[in-house]
This record gives sequence, C-alpha cells and structure tokens, in this order.
Amino acid sequence: MDFSISPKMQTILGMINEFVDKELIPMEHDFLTKEFSSLEPELEEKRRMVKEMELWAPMHPKDFGGMGLNLLEYGLVCEALARTPLGVYTFGCQAPDAGNAEILHKYGTPEQKEKYLRPVINGEIRSCFSMTEVDLPGSNPVLMDSNAVLDGDEWVINGHKWYTSSADGSKFAIAMVKTEPDAAPHLQASMIIVPTDTPGFNLVRNIPVMGHTGDSWHSHAEILYQNCRVPAENLLGPRGMGFILAQERLGPGRIHHCMRWIGICNRCLELVLERATTRPIAPGQVLADKQIIQTWIGEMAAQIQAARLMVLHCAWKMDTLGTKEAREEISLIKFYAAGVLQKVMDTALQVHGGLGMTDDTVIASFYRGERAARIYDGVDEVHKLSVAKRIIKEYKAKKGQK
Amino acid sequence: MDFSISPKMQTILGMINEFVDKELIPMEHDFLTKEFSSLEPELEEKRRMVKEMELWAPMHPKDFGGMGLNLLEYGLVCEALARTPLGVYTFGCQAPDAGNAEILHKYGTPEQKEKYLRPVINGEIRSCFSMTEVDLPGSNPVLMDSNAVLDGDEWVINGHKWYTSSADGSKFAIAMVKTEPDAAPHLQASMIIVPTDTPGFNLVRNIPVMGHTGDSWHSHAEILYQNCRVPAENLLGPRGMGFILAQERLGPGRIHHCMRWIGICNRCLELVLERATTRPIAPGQVLADKQIIQTWIGEMAAQIQAARLMVLHCAWKMDTLGTKEAREEISLIKFYAAGVLQKVMDTALQVHGGLGMTDDTVIASFYRGERAARIYDGVDEVHKLSVAKRIIKEYKAKKGQK
Amino acid sequence: MDFSISPKMQTILGMINEFVDKELIPMEHDFLTKEFSSLEPELEEKRRMVKEMELWAPMHPKDFGGMGLNLLEYGLVCEALARTPLGVYTFGCQAPDAGNAEILHKYGTPEQKEKYLRPVINGEIRSCFSMTEVDLPGSNPVLMDSNAVLDGDEWVINGHKWYTSSADGSKFAIAMVKTEPDAAPHLQASMIIVPTDTPGFNLVRNIPVMGHTGDSWHSHAEILYQNCRVPAENLLGPRGMGFILAQERLGPGRIHHCMRWIGICNRCLELVLERATTRPIAPGQVLADKQIIQTWIGEMAAQIQAARLMVLHCAWKMDTLGTKEAREEISLIKFYAAGVLQKVMDTALQVHGGLGMTDDTVIASFYRGERAARIYDGVDEVHKLSVAKRIIKEYKAKKGQK
Amino acid sequence: MDFSISPKMQTILGMINEFVDKELIPMEHDFLTKEFSSLEPELEEKRRMVKEMELWAPMHPKDFGGMGLNLLEYGLVCEALARTPLGVYTFGCQAPDAGNAEILHKYGTPEQKEKYLRPVINGEIRSCFSMTEVDLPGSNPVLMDSNAVLDGDEWVINGHKWYTSSADGSKFAIAMVKTEPDAAPHLQASMIIVPTDTPGFNLVRNIPVMGHTGDSWHSHAEILYQNCRVPAENLLGPRGMGFILAQERLGPGRIHHCMRWIGICNRCLELVLERATTRPIAPGQVLADKQIIQTWIGEMAAQIQAARLMVLHCAWKMDTLGTKEAREEISLIKFYAAGVLQKVMDTALQVHGGLGMTDDTVIASFYRGERAARIYDGVDEVHKLSVAKRIIKEYKAKKGQK
Repeated sequence: MDFSISPKMQTILGMINEFVDKELIPMEHDFLTKEFSSLEPELEEKRRMVKEMELWAPMHPKDFGGMGLNLLEYGLVCEALARTPLGVYTFGCQAPDAGNAEILHKYGTPEQKEKYLRPVINGEIRSCFSMTEVDLPGSNPVLMDSNAVLDGDEWVINGHKWYTSSADGSKFAIAMVKTEPDAAPHLQASMIIVPTDTPGFNLVRNIPVMGHTGDSWHSHAEILYQNCRVPAENLLGPRGMGFILAQERLGPGRIHHCMRWIGICNRCLELVLERATTRPIAPGQVLADKQIIQTWIGEMAAQIQAARLMVLHCAWKMDTLGTKEAREEISLIKFYAAGVLQKVMDTALQVHGGLGMTDDTVIASFYRGERAARIYDGVDEVHKLSVAKRIIKEYKAKKGQK
Repeated sequence: MDFSISPKMQTILGMINEFVDKELIPMEHDFLTKEFSSLEPELEEKRRMVKEMELWAPMHPKDFGGMGLNLLEYGLVCEALARTPLGVYTFGCQAPDAGNAEILHKYGTPEQKEKYLRPVINGEIRSCFSMTEVDLPGSNPVLMDSNAVLDGDEWVINGHKWYTSSADGSKFAIAMVKTEPDAAPHLQASMIIVPTDTPGFNLVRNIPVMGHTGDSWHSHAEILYQNCRVPAENLLGPRGMGFILAQERLGPGRIHHCMRWIGICNRCLELVLERATTRPIAPGQVLADKQIIQTWIGEMAAQIQAARLMVLHCAWKMDTLGTKEAREEISLIKFYAAGVLQKVMDTALQVHGGLGMTDDTVIASFYRGERAARIYDGVDEVHKLSVAKRIIKEYKAKKGQK
Repeated sequence: MDFSISPKMQTILGMINEFVDKELIPMEHDFLTKEFSSLEPELEEKRRMVKEMELWAPMHPKDFGGMGLNLLEYGLVCEALARTPLGVYTFGCQAPDAGNAEILHKYGTPEQKEKYLRPVINGEIRSCFSMTEVDLPGSNPVLMDSNAVLDGDEWVINGHKWYTSSADGSKFAIAMVKTEPDAAPHLQASMIIVPTDTPGFNLVRNIPVMGHTGDSWHSHAEILYQNCRVPAENLLGPRGMGFILAQERLGPGRIHHCMRWIGICNRCLELVLERATTRPIAPGQVLADKQIIQTWIGEMAAQIQAARLMVLHCAWKMDTLGTKEAREEISLIKFYAAGVLQKVMDTALQVHGGLGMTDDTVIASFYRGERAARIYDGVDEVHKLSVAKRIIKEYKAKKGQK
Repeated sequence: MDFSISPKMQTILGMINEFVDKELIPMEHDFLTKEFSSLEPELEEKRRMVKEMELWAPMHPKDFGGMGLNLLEYGLVCEALARTPLGVYTFGCQAPDAGNAEILHKYGTPEQKEKYLRPVINGEIRSCFSMTEVDLPGSNPVLMDSNAVLDGDEWVINGHKWYTSSADGSKFAIAMVKTEPDAAPHLQASMIIVPTDTPGFNLVRNIPVMGHTGDSWHSHAEILYQNCRVPAENLLGPRGMGFILAQERLGPGRIHHCMRWIGICNRCLELVLERATTRPIAPGQVLADKQIIQTWIGEMAAQIQAARLMVLHCAWKMDTLGTKEAREEISLIKFYAAGVLQKVMDTALQVHGGLGMTDDTVIASFYRGERAARIYDGVDEVHKLSVAKRIIKEYKAKKGQK
C-alpha cells in the first residue's frame, strides 16, 4: 500500500487551490445573491484563464482538449474544486456535461462526437440529461413511462421528466426513454439526443428547489416531451442499452460527487476554523477555546478523513479493476460520504450560529442544496440494501463452496 | 397525574385544525413561491374569519381582545396552528408581536398600552424586537455594544443590530440597549420603544436567510441606530432591567416555539403518511409496505411523543409554579424539541426523495427555515451547559445537607 | 392536564428511596461479586423490614397482602426501587413472579390461587415463566415447537425452552405450550402450571449470560420438558388462550420494565454527578467543570425526562382506558425507553473511565445485563414496525372516512 | 496511491485466517466459560504449530525470532488474528508483552535484552506494564503519585497502580514511577523493570472487570508497591524519559489495537451473516431477507471499511514519516475505530437477540470487554480535543504566514 500523491498531482492541486482562493471565492457573494446568468460573463473570463493554465476539462481525454486524468487523479481535482460552488463549472467539469461527455465519448458516432461532444468539452455549449420521471422512483427502471417510437426515420418521443438539471440554456438533452417495451425490464430503454430547440421539447418550468428557482446552469427543469421528433441517427448507443449506459455513467459520476462532497467538507472545516479562532464569546476567549467546539472539530476531521480515504480507495479500484468490480465500494461511498457531508455541513452551520443561517457565508447554500446528496443517484437506503444483498450473496456462495 | 385534555380545549383545537386544513394549507403554495406581502390581503380576510370564530389572539388577555388561555392551553393551540407556516400569523399570535405584547402588558405604562399594545393585539400594526448584535453572541450580555444615553428628555440611541425579525413594515421596535454601563453586567441594559419612522432608525437590509431575503412579517432585518432620538417616556420597564425582562419574555416564548415545532413535526408525519401510502415503488407495492419506512414512522412517532409530553409538562409547571421554578425544564425542552424537530424534518424530506427538495411541498421550507430552531433563543449547547450547571449545583447542595 | 404526584405517593416514594439508600445500596458490592444465594439470608431480613413498613408487594391486590397500587403509582415505585438491582426482589415485586401472580390472580382457579398465588405474593416461594424457545423467534407464535397433549387426566409436555428466568430454585413454572395445533395460529398455545419437581422437568443449565452463569433468582435457565406429566387441572386459563394471556401479561410488564429502566438511569446520573464533582483532572479542577461532561449531563437529563413522561403517560392511559387502547403507546415506550437506558448507561460508564469497566461500581453490571432491554419482550425493531403499521392503518382509515 | 496488498502478505494472511478458523475458533467456547490458565497447555501446543509455520511474533525483529513486519503489514496481521480473542496470544504478539518488547528492544541494555526481551519474544515468560494510577487520570502525567528514589544502588519504589494487565503470572513488570519530582511535568517519570517476585511487589487482586475477575494473561491487577527494591541497573531508558518512552510505546500500540478492533468487527459481521442467512423468522423467510437487517449489514460494511482504511493509512504514515508526523492521525483512528467497533458489536448482538446476550457466541464477550476500547490509551474525548488543538494551531500558523 502507498498513500502518497504524485508530485504531478501535488502541483496541479496547488495551482487549483490557489486559483479557487484568489479568483472564485471572491465571486461567491454574487453567486449567493444574484442570478447565475449574471455571473456568466465574468466566469467566461475565469474559464479562459483556466484554459491558459492548461487545467481545463481535467477528466476529459487529451485529444478532445482535456487533461486525461484517471479517476483517482480527477477525484483529487474534484475535491479541490468543490471548495466553492463555482469550481467545477469554471474548470469545465460540471455535471451533467461531464457525464454526458463520457457517454458520447464511449458510445457516440463520429458525427455525434463532432457535433455534440467537442463543443461540450470546449465549454461552447451546455447539455442536460433527462432521465428522472415525475411520479416514479428512479431506482426501478420498470416504472419508466416516457417512450419513443420509431416512425420512419424519426424517433417520436413522449414523456414527462423532471430534475433535468441545467436544461435551461442547454443545446441538447440526452433523453432516456422506453423504446423496447417488450424486452426484459433492464433492456427496455434507450438514450436519444434531443436538441432543445426541437418542437415538442417543452421546458415547463425551472423547479423551485429549496426556495430557489435558479436559472441557466444552476437550475433543475421539468420537461414535457410531446410528440417530439428527432432523426433516427440521434440514438446514442445501441437500442435497449439505456440503463446499462446510465449505470456506466453513474459509476465514475459517484466518485465525482463524493470527492466534491469531501471538498465541501474541507471548506466547511476551514470556515469553522476561521470562525472559531476569531469569534469572541467572553473577554479574552474565542469559540476555539471551548471543549464543545474542539470536540466537533475533532469529529469533523475524523469523518472527513474516513470518507476521503474510502472514496479514493474506490476510485483506485475502478481505475485498476474496472467499475463492475467496484460496485460494492461505489454503493458504500455513495451513502457514507453523503452522511459525512450532511453532518459536517450541519456542524459548520451550528458553529456560525445566526450567521450560519444567512447567505453572508456559503454554508447555508451548501446546507440546503447539498441535502440532495442523500437522494440523487440513488437514495442512501437503496445503496445500503444493494451492498447488503451483494455481501449476503457472496457469503452464501463462499459457504456453499466449503 | 392526569394527561387528559379538557373538553373546552378539545373543541377549540378541533376548530383550529379544521380551519388550518380548509383555509390555510391551500394558501401554502403561494406562501412558498411568492412575496409575503402579496398574500396579506387574503390573510386579512382569514384573520377576520378567525376573529368571528372568537379564536383570535388566544394567549392574550381577554380585556385586550384575546382568549386568555393559560400557557399549557396556548401551547396546544400553537401545536395545532404550526401545521402550516401561516397559522400563527392568521390567529394573531405571531412572533415577535406575541412576546412584545406580553412585555407591554406587564411593564408598559397605561399610555404605552393604549398606543402600542392594543393595536398590536388587534393586528392593526406590527412590531419587532431589536436585541441581537451583529458580531456578538446573544448569550453573553456583557458583550452588548448598542447603547442609549439620556440627553435632556430624549434617549439618543446608537448601535448595530441584526436578526430584528419582521422589522420590515413594523410600526415600532423594542430596542435593547445599554443604558447603565457602570452597573453589574446583567443590569446594564434597558428596553426602549422606537417608532420605526424615527430619524436614525435605519433598516439597512432584509438579510438573505437560507437563500430568501423575505419581506414584511416574513423577514429578518439589519438595523443601524444612528443618533436615533426618542422621548424619555419610551423607556419600557425600569432602567437597567432589560435583560431581566428579556429573560421573562423568553420563558413562555420557548413554550410557544417548542409547541410550534411539535406542530411542524405532526405535519411532517402527516405528509410522510400520505406519501408512503401512495408512492409506488414496485408493482403492487407502496413505500409504506417497506420496513425502512415503517421503522422511520415508528421512530418519528416516539420522538414526537417524547418531545410533546416534555413541553406540555414544562408549560404545566410554569402555569402552576412560575417561570423561575421551571428554568431547568425550559432549557431541557429548548434543545430536546429542537433536536426532534430536525430529525423529523430530515426524515420527512428523505421519504419524499427528489420531491422533498422542491417547493412543491412545505417540507423543504421547514427544513431550511427551521434549522434555526437549534440556534435562536440560545443555541442547543448553551442550554445543555445551563441545565448541567444547575443540576451539578443542586447535587452539591443536596450532598452538603446530608 | 395535571402532572402532580399525590401526597400519598410522595410519602411512599420518600420511604422507598431512603430504604434503598440505607439498606440495599450497601449490599451491592456483595451482589456484584458473590453468588445470589449467599445474599438471600440478609435479603430475607430486609424483606421482613419492608413488610413491617407495609411497603410489600406494592402492585399486588390488598386482599392478597399487597398494596393495591394502580399502574401509574406502581410505575413510580419501580423507578425508585430500580436504583439498585436488589430493589424489586426486596419489595416482593420481582419478575417473573410479578407477572405470574397477575395471570394467576386473573385466570387462576380458587385452588390455584391458594396453592400458587398466595405463597408467591408472600415471597415464600418463587416461580418462573417458560415461554421462549431455543431456536425460534418469540415474536412469531406460529413457530412454537413445545407442546402438550392430554393423556387421560394428565398433560404430557415435551419441548425445549430457554431464557426461563429464575427457574433455578423455583417451585413451579408456567409453561407455554402448543395444545391446539389445528387452531388458528394465535389460538394454539395454552399455559400450564408445572411444579419443578415433576419428573421430566429438566433444568439443563443456567445459561451463561454476559459472562455470568448466575444462580437462584438471578439466573436464566434452559429447560427440557421430556414427557413431563402434570394433572389436567394445572391448565391456567382457557385452552388455546396462552398467547392472549401472555400478551395481557406483557402490557403492564412493559410499564414495570420501562420504569425500572428510568430508575437505573436515575442511579447512573447520580453516580455521574458524584464522580464528576469529585474526580480531579487537573490541579483545582474536577470533571464537572468541563464542557464535555456538562453537555453529557444535560443530554442525560433530557433523555431521562422524555422517557419518564412517556412511560407515565402510557401507564395513565392503561389505568384509564385499558391496555388495548394503549397498545401503540406500549410499543413506543418499549423501544424508546430502552434506547435512552442504553445511552445513559454508556455515558455513565464513559464518565467513570477505567473504573466504569470494573465491578467496583454497579454501572458495569447495568451495562452488560441491561443490554437485554432492547431484546426481551420484543426487540426494538418489532415494536417500531408494530407502531408504524398501526399508525399507517389509522391514517388510511381516517382518510377513507373523509 | 496504491491500495494493493503484496503477494507475500496475502499468503501470510491466508495462512493465518485458516489457522484461526481451524485451530482457535473451536477453542472459544472453553475460553468463554473456563479459566484462562486451564487453556494454556492446549494453547502452548498451538503456539508450537505457529512457530513451525514461521508465523511467530510477526512484529518482532527477525534477530530476536520474529518476522520483522513493518507496521502496516503487522496491522493486517492483527486484523486477521483478532477474529478470535485467542489470536494474538497464540501468535506471540499479545499486549502488554508486545509493547514491552518494543521498549526493551529500543532502549534496553544488552543485559536487559538477554534477560527480559529474548524470553518474552520467545513466549517463555510474560510481562506487564504498570502505569495507570488508581485515583488519577492517566492522561495527565503531573498527577502521578507512584515514585522511586535511588537508595545506594537500588531503586526504592512506592506506589499504587491498577489496570496492570496480565500481571498475574508475569515474571516482571515495567513500572512507571516519578523519579525526578523537580523536573518539568513531562520529564518526571522513569521506567523501571521490577521482577514480580521482588519483595514489596504486591498483587492485591485481579480486579473484577465486567463481572469477570480473570486469571493469568487474561486479567487486570491492582498492584501495591511497598518499599519495593530493585537494582539501579533495572532502570529502562534514561531517567525522566518515562513519559516520552510511554508515548512512543503507545503510537504503534494504537495501530495494533485499532486493527485488532477491525478484526473483531470482521468477525462480528461474519457472525451476523451466518445468523441472518440461517435464522427463520417466518415460514420460508430468514432474517437476511429483511430490510432492517440488510440496512444494518450495509452500514456495518461502510463503517468497517472507513475505519480500516484510516488505520492502514495511519500505519503507512508512521512507517514512512515516523510516529511524530502521524500524531494527528493516531488520535483520529483511536476514537474513530473505537466508535465503529462499539456500533458493530452492538448491532451484531442485536441481530442475535437473546442468543447474543449469552456466552454461546463470542459476541457478548466482545461487547462487554471491548467497551474499554473507548477508554484505554486515552479516552475518546481526550483524543478529540488533542486532534482539534493541533488543527487549530496549524490553522493559526498557516494564517499567520499569509
């Protein structure tokens, strides 16, 4: 075992941390109180700087303009970027574009790659991923209602989706729809690329989430597909392979999310330390002198360390043995890191008292927005059951062999 | 011991529950997505209905137009009203007016009562309570910076306050300021009534709290007092008694808050039951069929029951023995009920999955806004320490007697 | 609502607390390090004192020599007695005799009452309750294997039981066995009185529990019934009503247990206070001066208060509306109070550090023995599910009516 | 980063796991119900087998007959051995001998090494470590009362120690006593080797711990040093360096303990899986089919994984950068792994229901004995504070530099 980080990565992370501190954290106040679109011109300039520093699109292949980092390396980058909500966007690795690009890279036709992948990686356009159904649990594919039928050389799509993040302003959506209703449950869906200006692609609303309707990249839309027609060649990957591809997309995506959460935890701890070492509570005393606060700092440090090593280990396993071999670890980190995140955010808020409730720090925004960590990409409970079933199955198999 | 609820209160609570269900819950969607002031005309009509039903101002004295309920009875009313964020406002018992009215009733001069108390209880005007300092912990009175000096027959007030809830639109503030800098620490502050149109009373901003700036009653302001002059007779209560009065104000206020939190818990449990019994998760199965959800429902029920009985017991003790005798119980319920509230809200949100994050239910609003329950009126930690010190002191005293 | 305790009960509780302090706590060291039977002569003398004080058998009917307290009153007595592991035994209200007496009083024939009930209540003999099966979950009656068949005027009993508490030294067992294999699942079992000197009643062993085999009243036996024959008239209650009677026995028994746990919590808190106020940690400082310890004391106080009020409320409901109406509350207190107990014991042990692990205080004994609180009479999980199912059912019924 | 385990270690761990399964777990029932000394002959035979397999004394230097593993490698061995309470003893790496040997190896004179170290490593004799004082907290060295004064060429030792583990049957103790009362607080104590047959070395009692007095290696003694005289050359290491050496001893010792706890967790999980997959709860259903049990298995797996990676990372850091550089990590793992251990043991017990309380499985023994994990070598709370103080100090230093 060797837990050391390569000199190359140490350099990269040092540059990123400095950039985040100097260029992005000062923009947070605007992020917290203004519309996202009003920040875009300034963010465009920051993106230009990132490209010049050759830190753009760290997880994308080099031949498409990225840095070509492996998953563990990119995980460390996510951690550094997530210290601010503006990090991943500015470095060209924001969801859902990152995941969409991955699918396009692996399964897209040469034409799809030129038309959709390249401009997404370049940050020229944005895209969205349209999977979650309004009234149905995402964890059970059998319950999908949206569908597409081939009418001549066109797919005709009908369906009702929501939580299509960043649809507002996107150039295209990757829609997950049922195309093979008679196949086995996991082989019924396909992915289809839908330009958002296609008639029948209706963005009903940006959903108000935690009091915030959002706009542009920073939004979650409800989409109604009504006889929405796209060319047959917009099929992404083989017919009926939608769920398989979505699962593949989710694996690395969970590393991205989990390392992002660790980064948020790190930021929360920094804010706690700043607050605790400066906030007077009695003449000559600050919060950091008190056992309760010290206890919390100790516990935060332990939880962050635990979650961080788990996620890095999982990334390493995926890099070396592949996603499939790491399915148990992926489920473990998903719920474990989300739990740590929530505890750390909650403690950070409490240390800040009334100030923690306001948008004068970034904590309240983390607290309300990242509550979703325990929900998206599979609620905690589904992952716990999934891990357990796998462990039980392995135990039985091992016992049977004896 | 007798845990029964009187027939009178059962009738009152039945009426309130029905009113909340029929008149207020349907308005919640607007509350969650619009400015508060845009709801005020409709709420004015609801308030008229409440007055006609003779359920107005339940905790205020009958001779001022209230129902004259005792603390335990009013606690039960709070519980019923808190099922919706619009409850207390519509029934004329919203903070901070309720607490202000109590102080005015006990300590106001006849002139102050006519000018300020009566219209507040009638719901004709609103008021605010200006105590919390921007950079100083509320729990340590020595650290107060705002002050007033008597200049002839006028108080000249200077200071910087925030979290002055509902200042926006208020007719007057009760300001807590240092007037006796040379007195013992707890005897330095006084309360002064400050009409909000007084020059030098500057509402700097409504503070963005959890992403929401708010307006009117539903807001928290930052106030700058700059050579703000009010007549000497605006002193409320004796000089130097500000903290004593504020403590007195807080005692019953904590019952109001805690029972309100129980009401929010009850609503959360209702929403969980509705969701669990209707949300399909597999063909022929709903969430409520699953052990995980059932376990949560069992745990929610236990926590709510525990917190509820503790608060009612505390209210009973205050009604029978007085606030001072119940100080330990008041601290216990403050942090215990706040903890239960947070767990229950969190579980309710989780049961709703992605929907729980949106403002299509009231849960996300509870989740972010009521996070403050563990902070205002004394953070959890201060109450735990306070209880412990009292218990330790009692133990030593008891042992010394032996 | 009225949370006051009657003067009569205050007097009784005062006497009990004094007796426990002066007569029983000094015997604890022997209890913790010697066999129980070696303490019995001294305990016999204490029992005599209790009878003279007219505090004997508090929950048993007056005409059988008890005090005739109702459930709430007796709950308060349990709380006081449980401050020491020797309390309930010394006051003639130890399990399983207490529960057996209740069944015999309600369902015994006049002959059974004279022969078994009277001497049990008098403390002349002890008894045991033989229900739990070795390999089968107690919560599912269908899975019972032990059985009895009527052969002429004798029951012939076969079966394998364990956790038959206090069988060692008992004069008779009440055995729960299947007698009606063809009836509906809940109507298959009956209760039969089995004198322990009956051939075929084999006490295989006292089971080592938490490192302690135990003896006499303080033991848990494994029993093998092998063609064990008793007269037909030893049937207790109607045929096939075993489970119904057992349930009835369990209801009040849970109040006894829960209030006993509260008493243990109270004792733990006393020990924490004694330790914290005397243990030096630095020159001039004791544990009680530290925020961590204070926080724990505050949390213990809150948890104990919460659990205590819940149990008393449940007892009141059973006294006024009957056991059946209080089924939900009974399940709630069972798991909630057990959870509080475990947290409080754990904290008390931690405050005592290395000493807490030794048998130089009573805490380690509580810690290991009372871990069973979350298991016996229905594991936590079963009660949570049971409460939830009832709540869900009520919700559906209520909604259906609308 | 590379999380792979070397082929050499995989082979060693495979052999150990098989040995534990075949040779040691079958002896557990005797361990749980008999005196330890009665097992020693059989254990001697097992030790002989271990030596033949060349797996003896894995962490000791090769030139003293050990395997010479580094800390990370030995940590993995601890994990494998700890699946049974008999593991470390049988492989010659039991506490306190392991730590004593380390000190002797580093600081012993050549004569001390021959006389004490060699036979300890060979398993010919046992030793104990006499540091903890009866009434004083171990975490504060200033509070040590035991002392030694040099009288001619002899140390005269007086003092009262307890928790001197395994003193019963030991050939010598390493006693920590104050020798330099006028030095700075951390430089007052020295280590002295005291043969246990020295007059004045009085083993007062084996302390009953969790109901178990214990004997031989499996015991904790109270020791009274009364004018106990040993030759001056029995000083171990330099005068006044006792605390420094003890700290050095504790660092690696915490890795040993923590990895041992992970091993106990692994065993608990195995027992849970066996129980869950075989225990019927309804016709055709076993525990493992239930969501509650599955959820627990998922949570156990995550907690074990988190703690395990943290401890291995810490061992790696100590191996590569030294103990001093890893002080923060050492404190983190101490309380974090202890917390995971307790949760896992508790869950394992709960899954076993009544059986879990008995000594028919090893769980109850783990549960009561390993409760001490949160206490010895520094209570959780001390480590949390220690970590926090270090983090706060680093934060201030870093900020000061900017």
